[in-house]
Amino acid sequence: MPRYKLTIAYDGTAFHGWQKQHPPDAKPLRTVQGEVEKAVMESVREKVHVLGASRTDAGVHARGQVAAFNCEQVMEPERLIEAITTRLPDDVQVLEGAVVPETFDPIQDCTSKGYRYQLAWGRRRATSRPLFDRHYTAWTHYALDIDSMRAAAAHFVGEHDFASLTRLNHGRESTVRTIHDCTVTALEDDRLHVDVSGDGFLYNMVRILVGTLIEVGRGRLAAESMPALLEARDRGHGSVTMPPEGLCLMWVQYGA
Amino acid sequence: MPRYKLTIAYDGTAFHGWQKQHPPDAKPLRTVQGEVEKAVMESVREKVHVLGASRTDAGVHARGQVAAFNCEQVMEPERLIEAITTRLPDDVQVLEGAVVPETFDPIQDCTSKGYRYQLAWGRRRATSRPLFDRHYTAWTHYALDIDSMRAAAAHFVGEHDFASLTRLNHGRESTVRTIHDCTVTALEDDRLHVDVSGDGFLYNMVRILVGTLIEVGRGRLAAESMPALLEARDRGHGSVTMPPEGLCLMWVQYGA
Repeated sequence: MPRYKLTIAYDGTAFHGWQKQHPPDAKPLRTVQGEVEKAVMESVREKVHVLGASRTDAGVHARGQVAAFNCEQVMEPERLIEAITTRLPDDVQVLEGAVVPETFDPIQDCTSKGYRYQLAWGRRRATSRPLFDRHYTAWTHYALDIDSMRAAAAHFVGEHDFASLTRLNHGRESTVRTIHDCTVTALEDDRLHVDVSGDGFLYNMVRILVGTLIEVGRGRLAAESMPALLEARDRGHGSVTMPPEGLCLMWVQYGA
Repeated sequence: MPRYKLTIAYDGTAFHGWQKQHPPDAKPLRTVQGEVEKAVMESVREKVHVLGASRTDAGVHARGQVAAFNCEQVMEPERLIEAITTRLPDDVQVLEGAVVPETFDPIQDCTSKGYRYQLAWGRRRATSRPLFDRHYTAWTHYALDIDSMRAAAAHFVGEHDFASLTRLNHGRESTVRTIHDCTVTALEDDRLHVDVSGDGFLYNMVRILVGTLIEVGRGRLAAESMPALLEARDRGHGSVTMPPEGLCLMWVQYGA
């Protein structure tokens, strides 16, 4: 049976996240997985299960989510994309499609993922608060020192136990992850990007990591305290979870 | 009594346009004028009438709308902006405030206005259709020849009767306007801007003008036919009205 890989972009604003959710005694929630599955099934006229690489939370966006599904029907990827696309709502797009080996697992085979967090900052609400990009950019009114944020970010790179930067850690699974890159980029108009990539991420990890960088940027935490924060392995040491709208899954990588 | 001038930006997506509307036997519609007036009145604690320079339609955006109001209270413009801003919803912002002469009329005194229309084009729906900027960019699947659009746009510059490019022309008012500039700018990813400025605009004029340029770009009208189209002074000669989301009021100018 052919297996297909899709690269998907979506505006997470009006979605209850990636993963299908069907609360008891209620209508299914609107999710990206639900919409994509429906569009694929209408395109190939078969029952299909679409598995995504990353279960992005409600309000989180993606420019390069990866998903896969099997179906009996053999279709040219280009034609498949067009068929799915015309059946998708205007806040999801299939960017690429490919036939992949039957063993391809979008979660297990993933070697690296990249996230970007967009942030606007500045005291004057009237001019620093995002307007046209407010669904894609979080805002803090604190003045931020970008250099100390950069110094703090460097401490996250490498293999660490990130228990301090996650939520709902039941202690059953390892909280050790390897971060390949964590970069703070200053942009015009008091905006910045935090780009983080790694072999895997814990629940809410990027959003708590950015919250922690903001604490450093506003001077409440020292960049040099990051190693001790990680070593504490305790959520109480991380900072607030930043809101979802600033976060975007940029890419998912397979193989070296 | 002091008179204040405000420069206002808004995301028009969730508004029924600028102008207050109160249908009989129904709740008032959500309008920019309504929201701004409410925020101003809460700030100055007086009944206030806010007059805008341009009555933008439902779904049309603004980066530089201008409005004015009188109130008894004397306030530092900076403090006034902050007071209004904290009372505005997150899709409207007051960018600037100034005290102006009591005679200042935002409509009558306006010497020039600038609009921008953002358009994405391309046959492949999956990759050319706007996603994250879909509320601010219209889309056409036609392939467009930008050079012929530019040639057509040049014919609109100057003083002309624009009756062919308006809707609801009751013949009571003059349809002669002077266009100062009409420029088509090609951008990356098969996107373009049409920037139009002039001393005044008729109802739906920019959206019909852009629709006409698209007809030229896709080869259904010749750029050289624009003078005859204007001379016909008949709406039947203009093209479809393009959707509101691509349009943005960029600035309003007073004085030379």
